[in-house]
Amino acid sequence: MSTASKRPRGAPTRQRIVNTSAELFRLQGYNATGIKQIVKRAEAPFGSIYHFFPGGKEELGAEAIRVSGATYAELIPAVFDPAPDPVTGVRNFFAGAAAHLVETDYADACPIATIALEVSSTSQPMRQACAEVFESWIEAGVERFRRQGLDAATARRVVVGMICALEGAFVLARAARTTEPLEVAAELMAQQVEQLLSGEPPARRPASPKRAAPESSGG
Amino acid sequence: MSTASKRPRGAPTRQRIVNTSAELFRLQGYNATGIKQIVKRAEAPFGSIYHFFPGGKEELGAEAIRVSGATYAELIPAVFDPAPDPVTGVRNFFAGAAAHLVETDYADACPIATIALEVSSTSQPMRQACAEVFESWIEAGVERFRRQGLDAATARRVVVGMICALEGAFVLARAARTTEPLEVAAELMAQQVEQLLSGEPPARRPASPKRAAPESSGG
Repeated sequence: MSTASKRPRGAPTRQRIVNTSAELFRLQGYNATGIKQIVKRAEAPFGSIYHFFPGGKEELGAEAIRVSGATYAELIPAVFDPAPDPVTGVRNFFAGAAAHLVETDYADACPIATIALEVSSTSQPMRQACAEVFESWIEAGVERFRRQGLDAATARRVVVGMICALEGAFVLARAARTTEPLEVAAELMAQQVEQLLSGEPPARRPASPKRAAPESSGG
Repeated sequence: MSTASKRPRGAPTRQRIVNTSAELFRLQGYNATGIKQIVKRAEAPFGSIYHFFPGGKEELGAEAIRVSGATYAELIPAVFDPAPDPVTGVRNFFAGAAAHLVETDYADACPIATIALEVSSTSQPMRQACAEVFESWIEAGVERFRRQGLDAATARRVVVGMICALEGAFVLARAARTTEPLEVAAELMAQQVEQLLSGEPPARRPASPKRAAPESSGG
């Protein structure tokens, strides 16, 4: 989980630019990060951005989102594989995220959440890249919980819930500088997973409340 | 929930500036919003920003966060009071958020989450304002669930979990342009509240896992 401090000096220029951008976007967001800051920190010539990314900052942003997403996806097996059971895996995942947040002085949380909120209504290519990353994380998690015996719909519900809880906990934790939200989210999800895997029916209700919004509108 | 479209023409200048800023920060974030855009849209003289906010954009940002937070806090009683029971209140809260998100083309979600992520590591006054708003929402929710018979610690866990789930669902929903995350989060929280209010012990474990991060560092 120490990608934040990795300065990719020896890497090829394109890779240095992408990794540096990903790091800066994660820490300070997309709009606060300028091309000048990126090239200076990546030790790359200014023109190289437009050489590698003819679409400029937006194209670079989308690429940085995808690269960050792929890197962080590796945390899922890294945390869950060594855990003795999925419930412990869930607890360890949130505890690891909390520990890393404290270690980085509450700076290094989700690699794409800040940029996702910044660009969702303003950049279609970057919004799409964020959506693809979230979906890749969901699918990786679903596959894992299906192997534990959950059906596809239940596994998806668990994983979407877990990512929601984690992302929201990061927002609150970074603002309040406390790990409380991550501990609460961990317990919430660990209990849900424990109940589902033990086969207890968790007070089921129809999945679609009457007032749920239609999914078809918008674009 | 239609504060997004409210253009406060008749309001005093200071209030117009704050409300316009809050609207722009919510839709496009803090860093993408310039003073020029704010004064133009608020129909205010450029110098009035520094007249009312000698600390400039950062002071205005903190004020906009607090005002947005207070406005949105009113949604809690507005949604929960008419609900026949707290579980329905939870479902209606998420369903209302989902409906509003769809109505606004996935633009209008949490008034302070984007700015919270943008500034958590870069502006102490704005980070602090976000933390105060989140805490005020938590306290309002805790009081409500205590009246339903939950003890203070359990009520806080429920409300913190609910805000985490909502905030994270907004991140995923805006990126993927789907209400699925809000529906999943609604069900997750409705089930937890239902279990807690019905007195079922939800497979309790020690609240602090061994690997939880210390709260005292940083600071």
